[in-house]
Amino acid sequence: MERVYIKDLEVSEEEVLLRGWVHKIRDFGHIAFIMLRDKSGIIQLVCEKEQIKGLRLENSIEVVGLVKENEKASKGIEVEVSSIEIVGKTYYDKLPFEVQSYKNKTGLETQLDHRTISLRIPKVKAIFKVQNEIEEAFKGYFKSHDFEQIHTPKIINSGTEGGSEMFTVNYFNRRAFLAQSPQFYKQMMVGAGFEKVFEIGYAYRAELHNTWRHLNEYVSLDVEMGFIKDESDLMDVEEDFLRYMFEHLKETCSEELKLYGVEVPEELKIPRIPLAEAQKMLLEKYGKKSPVGNIDHEGEALLHKYIKEKYNSDFVFLTEYPVSKRPMYTMEDEKKPGFTKSFDLIYKGLEITTGGQRIHDYEMLKERIVGAKMKLEDFAFYLDTFKYGMPPHGGFAIGLERITMKVLELSNIREAALFPRDIKRLTP
Amino acid sequence: MERVYIKDLEVSEEEVLLRGWVHKIRDFGHIAFIMLRDKSGIIQLVCEKEQIKGLRLENSIEVVGLVKENEKASKGIEVEVSSIEIVGKTYYDKLPFEVQSYKNKTGLETQLDHRTISLRIPKVKAIFKVQNEIEEAFKGYFKSHDFEQIHTPKIINSGTEGGSEMFTVNYFNRRAFLAQSPQFYKQMMVGAGFEKVFEIGYAYRAELHNTWRHLNEYVSLDVEMGFIKDESDLMDVEEDFLRYMFEHLKETCSEELKLYGVEVPEELKIPRIPLAEAQKMLLEKYGKKSPVGNIDHEGEALLHKYIKEKYNSDFVFLTEYPVSKRPMYTMEDEKKPGFTKSFDLIYKGLEITTGGQRIHDYEMLKERIVGAKMKLEDFAFYLDTFKYGMPPHGGFAIGLERITMKVLELSNIREAALFPRDIKRLTP
Repeated sequence: MERVYIKDLEVSEEEVLLRGWVHKIRDFGHIAFIMLRDKSGIIQLVCEKEQIKGLRLENSIEVVGLVKENEKASKGIEVEVSSIEIVGKTYYDKLPFEVQSYKNKTGLETQLDHRTISLRIPKVKAIFKVQNEIEEAFKGYFKSHDFEQIHTPKIINSGTEGGSEMFTVNYFNRRAFLAQSPQFYKQMMVGAGFEKVFEIGYAYRAELHNTWRHLNEYVSLDVEMGFIKDESDLMDVEEDFLRYMFEHLKETCSEELKLYGVEVPEELKIPRIPLAEAQKMLLEKYGKKSPVGNIDHEGEALLHKYIKEKYNSDFVFLTEYPVSKRPMYTMEDEKKPGFTKSFDLIYKGLEITTGGQRIHDYEMLKERIVGAKMKLEDFAFYLDTFKYGMPPHGGFAIGLERITMKVLELSNIREAALFPRDIKRLTP
Repeated sequence: MERVYIKDLEVSEEEVLLRGWVHKIRDFGHIAFIMLRDKSGIIQLVCEKEQIKGLRLENSIEVVGLVKENEKASKGIEVEVSSIEIVGKTYYDKLPFEVQSYKNKTGLETQLDHRTISLRIPKVKAIFKVQNEIEEAFKGYFKSHDFEQIHTPKIINSGTEGGSEMFTVNYFNRRAFLAQSPQFYKQMMVGAGFEKVFEIGYAYRAELHNTWRHLNEYVSLDVEMGFIKDESDLMDVEEDFLRYMFEHLKETCSEELKLYGVEVPEELKIPRIPLAEAQKMLLEKYGKKSPVGNIDHEGEALLHKYIKEKYNSDFVFLTEYPVSKRPMYTMEDEKKPGFTKSFDLIYKGLEITTGGQRIHDYEMLKERIVGAKMKLEDFAFYLDTFKYGMPPHGGFAIGLERITMKVLELSNIREAALFPRDIKRLTP
């Protein structure tokens, strides 16, 4: 007999084979109701007394039975059981927390300690359905727009992107690093003739922050493209991708979005505002001072409020960051010296993207490296590509957990990682 | 003017905008021919003397011109140039090696030293088109068969899978490891109620081997599924995926396969042979002795020859590995004590997969850990899931670079990695 998923059940005169976990047991003595949970949904099983002998919550079972109508059951059907077999035993005194309740009040750290139990809670699992479809949309959009997927190394030779925030690896008794981002490699792949590339891969930040919005290992959705005019090409692409992504989520995740009470925007038009202008507005409207060349988290939240009111947008591109606040490879705006052709994207008050046009001229790049008091020889692997006709190019990256978190309005980024890594957490 | 890719060029009365790199220059004084290369192909440009002034091989350029018929040009068209602009300068005395030749005789190490130049060689780039489509087929197949994609951590707490072959990471002054495989985590995700999962991610092996078939950082295509009958379910799935993959490659990569002179199998039926039987055959037919509980690389090559002759198959599943030669979580065959429900898949004489059914019972698993003289507390993060109804399950993994290498019959696995990492190589 072929196994049927719960979501595909229909009333029939033939028996079906179901598999899953015991989500709930209601024992009335002569009769018992079990809620069976599989990856697709939950269904009520009607059992006789003997059939549930020894059955405990979260046992995994195989069930054979007949699908019948029952107006009172959810979706109007239930399964009359002819046999139950326990295929996965349980070995607990007490569950670490309830799986059956949709309203889960267990603290996040306890949930993460027993991650494979908390993931059984349908509302928790729903986060990763949405995350999967965000990734699917990313891959689908960029592949269909002539971008090629790449895998670049995560073990790298030198801490070129800011050594202090990088994890070190013992690589056959040499000191190596975990890549903070595929920045240099994705640029190199543009230069290698791939022109337009994307990567879905882990990035590592040894930041000491332990906040609701930082992870030390996260999935970065990276994009880099050659032959651009300027950074506005990049913002156009990202905006278009986001439109596509929300459309895709509407089609594939309507139930999950409903579970979280969130809606995706019907229209997306993202305002682009110079950083200085945003800082000025924050000061004038909210009395909020910003650090030089940036906006802090409180400022981002206020900015969201302002942008939402004025433009009805959850997103805003901040542009024209000063040269001193951006990495050395960022292209300076020849029309506005001291400022770069770079941007951040703020989504519901959280930065989810940094992007911009990069320097493509070999000599200019060397100058900037030297000017930043870094060693040219550390960048030899990167500079080599720039000798052979590097075209104007740029790109951006989106943090997968951050965008998931903000789409679903989760309060902690750890909820959007299957097995989050932070300064304290290395398990499970 | 919108940029047009070379592969989409058609004769027209309107000018087109092209972008790419200078692949070849033939200067006849009064007239010059340039081969322009973009990510999609190569086309001949017809230029006047002045237009090529200062132009060098591998400059990136923007070209405006008219597409004309020319029987002598490849594909019967060429572009009469009205303007050329250099957008990416060159800064070299001499190219490290020729990019324009299809027959590339430069040594592999030199090519890898200048990876972004060797990737410009169309035949080298073709490898990654094929690799992308293998990955696409993997994702497409498993997604459409109800598997969910997961991302599991690569920084892990303990060297549970064999400490000596793992890279260590300094994780905020704690000793952590780079995961050798997502083995434990993909099993845990089955137990977390996802039932059927796949992962595309890096795996790290600190093996000291420096051979044509080993990489220290490679992309692992991992599969794990719950509620299986036994390991034959897993071999069925892998075989079906491979059929799908070859069909997909035939549709998407016919040119690339032709470039390498390889064909994909029309039919795929993979023989399944117990290890002991294969060892016996090797001894009797070729006088080849095998190590206990395994077949060495010479044996694998001879086995391929034998299987090819007898079954007309490039693949063979080897089954029934002894318990002593498999990891402690491998399920023993109750009908054949001492042997496991595990398998390897050998493709053209190279192991590309290890798989099998895993132990799902908490007590049995604890016994095996203790029996293997390992510490239970190191496995607490893993064992926790097994207390709560872990169903029978199993899975397998395919090395992306290995399968790419064998499909295209490359002689060294480094050719199938954009930026390979081996015991000597950490750059570029």
